[in-house]
Amino acid sequence: MHDSVITFIQDLAVIMIVAAFVTVIFHRLKQPVVLGYIVAGVLIGPHTPPFELIRDEHTIRILAELGVIFLMFSLGLEFSFRKLLRVGATALIAAVLEIIVMIWIGYQIGLWLGWNNNLDALFLGAILAISSTTIIVKALNDLKMKHERFAHLIFGVLIVEDILGIGLIALLSGVAISGSVSGSDVFLTISKLSLFMIVAMLVGILLVPRLLAYIGKFRSNEMLLITVLGLCFGFCLLVVKLEYSMVLGAFIIGAIIAEARELHWIERLIEPVRDMFSAIFFVAVGLLLDPRVMIEYATPILVIAGAVIIGKVFSCTIGAMIAGNDGRTSLRMGMGMSQIGEFSFIIASLGMAYKVTSDFLYPIVVAVSAITTLTTPYLIRAADPLAKSIARITPRPLARIVDLYGEWLNNLHPQGTNAVIWNMIKRILVQIGINMAVVIAIFLGSAYLALNLGNEFLADWIDDIDWRKSLIWGTTLILSLPFLIAAFRKFKALSMMLAEMSVRESVTGRHTQQVRRIISEILPLLFLTGTMLFLSALSASILPKRESLILVIVSIIAIVFVLRRWFVRIHSRLQIALYETLDHEDPNEKQETGH
Amino acid sequence: MHDSVITFIQDLAVIMIVAAFVTVIFHRLKQPVVLGYIVAGVLIGPHTPPFELIRDEHTIRILAELGVIFLMFSLGLEFSFRKLLRVGATALIAAVLEIIVMIWIGYQIGLWLGWNNNLDALFLGAILAISSTTIIVKALNDLKMKHERFAHLIFGVLIVEDILGIGLIALLSGVAISGSVSGSDVFLTISKLSLFMIVAMLVGILLVPRLLAYIGKFRSNEMLLITVLGLCFGFCLLVVKLEYSMVLGAFIIGAIIAEARELHWIERLIEPVRDMFSAIFFVAVGLLLDPRVMIEYATPILVIAGAVIIGKVFSCTIGAMIAGNDGRTSLRMGMGMSQIGEFSFIIASLGMAYKVTSDFLYPIVVAVSAITTLTTPYLIRAADPLAKSIARITPRPLARIVDLYGEWLNNLHPQGTNAVIWNMIKRILVQIGINMAVVIAIFLGSAYLALNLGNEFLADWIDDIDWRKSLIWGTTLILSLPFLIAAFRKFKALSMMLAEMSVRESVTGRHTQQVRRIISEILPLLFLTGTMLFLSALSASILPKRESLILVIVSIIAIVFVLRRWFVRIHSRLQIALYETLDHEDPNEKQETGH
Repeated sequence: MHDSVITFIQDLAVIMIVAAFVTVIFHRLKQPVVLGYIVAGVLIGPHTPPFELIRDEHTIRILAELGVIFLMFSLGLEFSFRKLLRVGATALIAAVLEIIVMIWIGYQIGLWLGWNNNLDALFLGAILAISSTTIIVKALNDLKMKHERFAHLIFGVLIVEDILGIGLIALLSGVAISGSVSGSDVFLTISKLSLFMIVAMLVGILLVPRLLAYIGKFRSNEMLLITVLGLCFGFCLLVVKLEYSMVLGAFIIGAIIAEARELHWIERLIEPVRDMFSAIFFVAVGLLLDPRVMIEYATPILVIAGAVIIGKVFSCTIGAMIAGNDGRTSLRMGMGMSQIGEFSFIIASLGMAYKVTSDFLYPIVVAVSAITTLTTPYLIRAADPLAKSIARITPRPLARIVDLYGEWLNNLHPQGTNAVIWNMIKRILVQIGINMAVVIAIFLGSAYLALNLGNEFLADWIDDIDWRKSLIWGTTLILSLPFLIAAFRKFKALSMMLAEMSVRESVTGRHTQQVRRIISEILPLLFLTGTMLFLSALSASILPKRESLILVIVSIIAIVFVLRRWFVRIHSRLQIALYETLDHEDPNEKQETGH
Repeated sequence: MHDSVITFIQDLAVIMIVAAFVTVIFHRLKQPVVLGYIVAGVLIGPHTPPFELIRDEHTIRILAELGVIFLMFSLGLEFSFRKLLRVGATALIAAVLEIIVMIWIGYQIGLWLGWNNNLDALFLGAILAISSTTIIVKALNDLKMKHERFAHLIFGVLIVEDILGIGLIALLSGVAISGSVSGSDVFLTISKLSLFMIVAMLVGILLVPRLLAYIGKFRSNEMLLITVLGLCFGFCLLVVKLEYSMVLGAFIIGAIIAEARELHWIERLIEPVRDMFSAIFFVAVGLLLDPRVMIEYATPILVIAGAVIIGKVFSCTIGAMIAGNDGRTSLRMGMGMSQIGEFSFIIASLGMAYKVTSDFLYPIVVAVSAITTLTTPYLIRAADPLAKSIARITPRPLARIVDLYGEWLNNLHPQGTNAVIWNMIKRILVQIGINMAVVIAIFLGSAYLALNLGNEFLADWIDDIDWRKSLIWGTTLILSLPFLIAAFRKFKALSMMLAEMSVRESVTGRHTQQVRRIISEILPLLFLTGTMLFLSALSASILPKRESLILVIVSIIAIVFVLRRWFVRIHSRLQIALYETLDHEDPNEKQETGH
């Protein structure tokens, strides 16, 4: 026991001392600290003389995993729905385009290099997809460009990338376990993931900020920290039990806690803990790096680094221009995104953990990350002169086309009354979507519980299997009723608006009112029928026989008639609680963006 | 690999969630959070149903050790020479009396309970000796008494206790390894420890605050934290290699860093890390607690808890009164000190680690700590009424004696010119002591190096063993010359002052000047001779033969004559550097005391 503690302290001492030395040197050379950690890891690692300095690699690896959790948790803390909505279209288009292009490029490079293992190529694609928040923030800080417009666009793209990256990790875990990719698998994985994220966020945002406000009242740093750590690790554990990655859990619980009023206090407490463990993580990344592998694989490393830079600059610049930004801003944004970092390490270690990628992949990724990290600040600085040169040599007709596209795009945006209506419709659609997600989650959860626990438990009480099913299915339907009714009411409102807009008096004349009424009555009925059929399919395993089903539905319709008001009230209470949490004023919003 | 990470995260999640719950409950019940952690540990521990929740106890134990290191490091950060000097006599007398009384009481109880293992009784004594900073600060905070006079005295006693406790730990480690205690062992251990602490502090205070000021200029939380962690773990490792306890290292490096200007910044960064790991430590303490053992040993637990309360209240109160405080303040101070805590756990786990104590000792200590923690706030509140009752029933003659003692003590304090001279003499004595400590450390270190490395290395160059010894001994003497000369000069100044004061003109008449001069010349020569004899004895293993020795000494005397000024300059530069670090203004001094 005592010896293993000393070994462990020795490892920590070596890591921290070497890390401190190297980061000071890197700071003086104006390079990101992260790169310093990786170099420190290489220096003390098993592949470089004079000796192997780390003794208890097992414990260090476990602490490095804590580093990943805290890194993703911090990213989650910086996530915010409001920020996401603000950057909107540009971020979404650029991020999606970039990720698709980079996965494709990575996969093609893997095939072109003749890698035997197909999964190596797929993982390489995913590894190249996501840029590094840490390194971009550091570079923009150093260049004092954090408050320019292109920087805000970059932060937006990074947020979208984080979410898509989380999806990628979930997908790749599935692929790694099953060993193959199919279109329907991807669709199923993404829908299940989205469903889980929506429900977790809804429930989380209803409960967690209230809990933290309660703890916050004690004004004790210690209690708040312990509670936040409990939430973080506890949620990670839950997510692992549902067979998702811990990284996903850390990000989601971070995003939930980001809605608490105590956010800035929590960030201050978590920062040192994150810094300590993320240093261990990055040093551990360096520990895995064998310089000989880097020399052996020099060609692929250079090719991939070139592909990252060129691919990301092109895809992000084009993405930003499609979203209607001018050429200069787009190019600066693209140049800023041209590197890979922490997400790539996480995806690469995922491949290693599942033992589906070859050993050489990890050192290649670390080397590419190091190279592209070094080039990032130079590229950002080169963006402005480059934009001018390009503008000078662009043929006039091409420039004219770009301008025309921008004007056309601007005209596309709905304006005046139309804009107001369009926003209302968007809002209603989001609300319907969220309510339906909750309903679906309740039915899926109920089917899962019934199959695993409930059936046996109920079997002692009710003999007939059909009666059991009726009871379970009916209870599930009642539980989901507040959300179902809300979705139905929203849909009715939407139908009325659509009827008003689509049926013009000039066409239908004096029948206008009747036609509108028919549309606004029929659409919701169609919606209800479709929903019930869908839910029945979803809960096939707990669906009772037809006769019992009709009985259940009839009794529930009766219940709805009697308690309609009560269901509406429950839902509106939940909704108010949710809005209260999301809409609180945040005086530090500005500063927050700067992180 | 992946599974062990999940196991680890699960353990952390369980610890943090249960700890958060229990601490909230304890906070509502107005009990210290620390007690909540211990109860949380018992709940999730292996001895209480429903199931054993901690899977990877090995890793959790290692993290708990980190908790101990961070706890002691934080105590070190709060240590300060200025604070120590300010509380002075009361703290010293009360702490020494308390520790001696409590060790004796603990040992006697152990014998009385008929414990077979003598070391159990000795460890029990040490365990009962030191009160708990954490719990006292919490109780005084809750009672809003932190700024009263008795509270400041308590903080002083706690600082002295920490130092003596560190000494106790070093002693017990020695006893545990050798299995016995002897007077000369104790003396040797204490002198070696004091020497090590003085030299480590001197060198540390010369180097570390400069390093931290350099790192601080980068204004990066992350770099400062990593550097501090590197210093902390690195120094702990060094101390372990010298066969002292890591706890000692953490405290000393904390006390060194406390002299940096960046102290408050560092405290802010270390606090969350310490809170996280110390929570794990206290929960791990609870994990070891078997409630059945507590029932089985109910009698010793109650006896020991009673002894802690009565023994500490008496010894501290009497100690404070001996130092000249009034009865009410003394009693309040004594009542405040009446519990055991983190130091006791550390000493108890030391006994377990060395396998020299019985298994039942640890749970007994935890139970006694829990009981005395619960009684502390009530005792503090009861102190005032009790003091009044005692004052009422005290016989008049006894009260008069106490008053007279206070007056007599006050008259003892030197006043006016005498006080100034007395302070000067104290200062010179301290400086001589420090310089001599450095000289001794250089000689000891040199002898150690020569025996382990230097002799063989030099053997290739110089054949004759006597020449080698002469070279090593001579170099050692030259290295220690700046400090030796400084000590000599201070001693000369002291001799002159003593001559001035002791030889009065009324006695010696016109021979006054001569007598004074003889005294002030002879004393330093005696000092020099004594020192050289002592150093020769100390470095017996590297001392050359008499002829060579005379040659070496003569040549060094020649060197001193030529380079005398240069040696003085080196020393004064070192001294100025030290004073600069120690004397910087601290605007937050007041607030700091409150911690």
